[in-house]
Amino acid sequence: MNETDMKLVVVGAAGRMGQTLIRIIHETAGVRLHAAIERTGSPFIGRDAGELAGAGPMGVAVTDKPLEAFVEAEGVLDFTAPAATVEFAGLAAQARIVHVVGTTGCSADDEARIRAAARHARVIKSGNMSLGVNLLGMLTEKAARALPAGGWDIEILEMHHKHKVDAPSGTALLLGEAAARGRGIDLADHSVRVRDGHTGARPEGSIGFATLRGGSVIGEHSVVIAGEGEMVTLSHSATDRSIFARGAVAAALWGRSRKPGFYSMLDVLGLD
Amino acid sequence: MNETDMKLVVVGAAGRMGQTLIRIIHETAGVRLHAAIERTGSPFIGRDAGELAGAGPMGVAVTDKPLEAFVEAEGVLDFTAPAATVEFAGLAAQARIVHVVGTTGCSADDEARIRAAARHARVIKSGNMSLGVNLLGMLTEKAARALPAGGWDIEILEMHHKHKVDAPSGTALLLGEAAARGRGIDLADHSVRVRDGHTGARPEGSIGFATLRGGSVIGEHSVVIAGEGEMVTLSHSATDRSIFARGAVAAALWGRSRKPGFYSMLDVLGLD
Amino acid sequence: MNETDMKLVVVGAAGRMGQTLIRIIHETAGVRLHAAIERTGSPFIGRDAGELAGAGPMGVAVTDKPLEAFVEAEGVLDFTAPAATVEFAGLAAQARIVHVVGTTGCSADDEARIRAAARHARVIKSGNMSLGVNLLGMLTEKAARALPAGGWDIEILEMHHKHKVDAPSGTALLLGEAAARGRGIDLADHSVRVRDGHTGARPEGSIGFATLRGGSVIGEHSVVIAGEGEMVTLSHSATDRSIFARGAVAAALWGRSRKPGFYSMLDVLGLD
Amino acid sequence: MNETDMKLVVVGAAGRMGQTLIRIIHETAGVRLHAAIERTGSPFIGRDAGELAGAGPMGVAVTDKPLEAFVEAEGVLDFTAPAATVEFAGLAAQARIVHVVGTTGCSADDEARIRAAARHARVIKSGNMSLGVNLLGMLTEKAARALPAGGWDIEILEMHHKHKVDAPSGTALLLGEAAARGRGIDLADHSVRVRDGHTGARPEGSIGFATLRGGSVIGEHSVVIAGEGEMVTLSHSATDRSIFARGAVAAALWGRSRKPGFYSMLDVLGLD
Repeated sequence: MNETDMKLVVVGAAGRMGQTLIRIIHETAGVRLHAAIERTGSPFIGRDAGELAGAGPMGVAVTDKPLEAFVEAEGVLDFTAPAATVEFAGLAAQARIVHVVGTTGCSADDEARIRAAARHARVIKSGNMSLGVNLLGMLTEKAARALPAGGWDIEILEMHHKHKVDAPSGTALLLGEAAARGRGIDLADHSVRVRDGHTGARPEGSIGFATLRGGSVIGEHSVVIAGEGEMVTLSHSATDRSIFARGAVAAALWGRSRKPGFYSMLDVLGLD
Repeated sequence: MNETDMKLVVVGAAGRMGQTLIRIIHETAGVRLHAAIERTGSPFIGRDAGELAGAGPMGVAVTDKPLEAFVEAEGVLDFTAPAATVEFAGLAAQARIVHVVGTTGCSADDEARIRAAARHARVIKSGNMSLGVNLLGMLTEKAARALPAGGWDIEILEMHHKHKVDAPSGTALLLGEAAARGRGIDLADHSVRVRDGHTGARPEGSIGFATLRGGSVIGEHSVVIAGEGEMVTLSHSATDRSIFARGAVAAALWGRSRKPGFYSMLDVLGLD
Repeated sequence: MNETDMKLVVVGAAGRMGQTLIRIIHETAGVRLHAAIERTGSPFIGRDAGELAGAGPMGVAVTDKPLEAFVEAEGVLDFTAPAATVEFAGLAAQARIVHVVGTTGCSADDEARIRAAARHARVIKSGNMSLGVNLLGMLTEKAARALPAGGWDIEILEMHHKHKVDAPSGTALLLGEAAARGRGIDLADHSVRVRDGHTGARPEGSIGFATLRGGSVIGEHSVVIAGEGEMVTLSHSATDRSIFARGAVAAALWGRSRKPGFYSMLDVLGLD
Repeated sequence: MNETDMKLVVVGAAGRMGQTLIRIIHETAGVRLHAAIERTGSPFIGRDAGELAGAGPMGVAVTDKPLEAFVEAEGVLDFTAPAATVEFAGLAAQARIVHVVGTTGCSADDEARIRAAARHARVIKSGNMSLGVNLLGMLTEKAARALPAGGWDIEILEMHHKHKVDAPSGTALLLGEAAARGRGIDLADHSVRVRDGHTGARPEGSIGFATLRGGSVIGEHSVVIAGEGEMVTLSHSATDRSIFARGAVAAALWGRSRKPGFYSMLDVLGLD
């Protein structure tokens, strides 16, 4: 631990993602756990956050006092729920710290409140905090823009574990949206999600999806762009769910030296 | 050219596959073109077979006299049509030579006649003459038998060019059949050919298919067998349609020293 | 837990692999932890084995009395060290149980003693307990036998994490040995382990190796067999170190109904 | 053929690349063959360019009069040799047309003369005319810039046919240069081109190369960027040597509406 380490607060500290955040902060140079927050009444209040996370005692007890924690900290990592995130955004703005938001399912109204808080906080928000997935989305958009639909066919392939109950994955759709944006088309009008039996030739300009399921695969995604005699493939493979926590910590470090504002992982990657 | 080269006849010599066979014979050590056959009345009768195939003159004129050709030859390569193949099988039996049959669409009755001819000819017949695809099928069956359904999920992925009008490919289904045989199950009862929207968890013991289409891809096939924490993938990639002709020539050379009988590409591979 | 569950002993219970074995036994149907052994004087004697492994209390205290444990059990899982394994083999023979041996580095003399014990025990021993890797080795041998060196080139590619200090990996060499066995050649005389600068054309019949290093990759291996116009690729991907423990449990269950003898993972896979 | 087709000249028309260019022009919408040039004294002068290229007669006889051809044309496709290319650049400048240059091995002096010609011509010059490879290079640079060396390891893998006599391929090195540029480092100081035996852990910030050789593979390249728990892979696969001709035609069409200047394939892709 070092005097210059960035002091981070984890909210939702006793949840699965909260525990992962605590472990990743613990093993990452340049950051340290300043506080761990749970909701009032949680049975985990007072427990050592490090022990809770299976990383050994850290001398940080779980509390239900976020504002006290925020004012002494430099950033907060938040993968909770929309209502909690809106509240934390307000507190982060008061404390003028970095607020990294991995929470999903926010309404337009939630989004507006979080953006309002970004006048004073540095908010970094993304539906997927993995650096690799965000990079892949941006590269997909660029590739789809550079290679014209008349001659280059875009396909998106994903594989996940046998327990996943829907298809295609949210990330596959996110990549499809990136490809459609690059092409200047609407994904809904151009996606081909099923092929079986007599399909006819591939419609020019369409974006195809294919899905594999099996074993314990955490997440494999490929964007295939196939032309005459050549093929470009852009892929991401996740082998550890901690990548979202790692991305959040990277975002916090990036945000430390920024001005207040609303940012995405593309800003963290320096790609926007 | 060498005295000991195996003398081969190509039937259907002016067709696309016939021309490929002539070129591959020309560039393969240990074989030579003895005769090239077209049906009576073909405008190509009398033309030089090598020139027809774009491989330069070979001094072999196309004729419509198969029996004359067969009796002086050691093998015939046949990717024609069922009726012609049944006839050629009879002539090959008379000449007691090797008959390599890549013809598809034979009826049970055609099949019976070809098998009857195999009492005197050495017939090697397969729906796909690629050595690699046949090997992949056999390895798939072995893998599916070794890795139990409770714990290992089988998925079959294929990619073909944008002009292909059906899905999954015949080879993907052939691989699915091989996997089902290894598992001792019926493919029709266990295949999952479409995944879109809320699919539920993957049914144990099912065999999934996924299809990609794009560009000029000749044929990519993968059998993915995914377990907890590990995955085995068996793949075949075709980049040149000449592989079927190469497999046919390899089959003829293999058949040269065999006894009369009905064989498959698995025999040629030494795998059965 | 079930009356018919196979009762298993873990030796070296407090080590990293011992802990993984305890966790995998805990989550696998059909087996249960009967005893956990550490050497006399270990600070872990008396501790609950499940707690030690991070899987919650299991009511099994670590002991230093292997024979007492073995006589009441049906199998022992052993990833310890050669000297300990030789001793455990003798005890397993006395108790006439299954002895699964993942220990590496045994001398010829150790090997002979373990084989002697196999007159009474059912010993299953392998340098790599992963079902997938063992399957891949066997398929590689078959493929190398079926596809002749004149026309098919074998290459072995592996990728591991950035901390690995040697190349190629032991598994890559094991796959090379399998390919050489299929070809009936000696690997040492035919392997190409470095390519840089002016290499000249690829020597026919050689087996090439290539190595990638990066990130946290646990182990990726591919056997590429490349011919004219087609390519067969056989791959294994490990994403969790627990696969060795899973393979050991599968081996124990397989061994339960066998006669005494010395077996390998190929027997477990039904491939030998 | 259409009134508005872009009229193209092929120089070096009787060479292997010249013939491919003629065939690709013939099958591409929006362009047509206006003239085919060979050097004075070539035995091919006067022959029909289409027949020479194996695409059937096109009514365009090979000539040795480039300037006459250029003044009536809109673009010239040039994969000849440095001395010829410098001369053609001067003539293209006189004719104020598009000059697509795929010629390699130009000296600094040649390059200066070609750039001088670009004051009047629209010169598009690249060492590799494949759209896919140029795109991959640009995406590699962006990815290498976005993902820091402390945490992300870059590896470059390539596979080519068994006849290739050097390693790594020129394209692999080009991708390595792109990665080094993205990282702001010098490739020569950071590349690891051989791994065998005791290598030690991977040096942070290094760029590794690995080479596969076999069969008839035209060119496979992958840039692997491996982090903790995730991996991004950017790949290109060439299955037909015509991709360089296709890229040249795409470049000519792109250049048709530009101002005089010196451009690269990145401009054609809209990426620079």
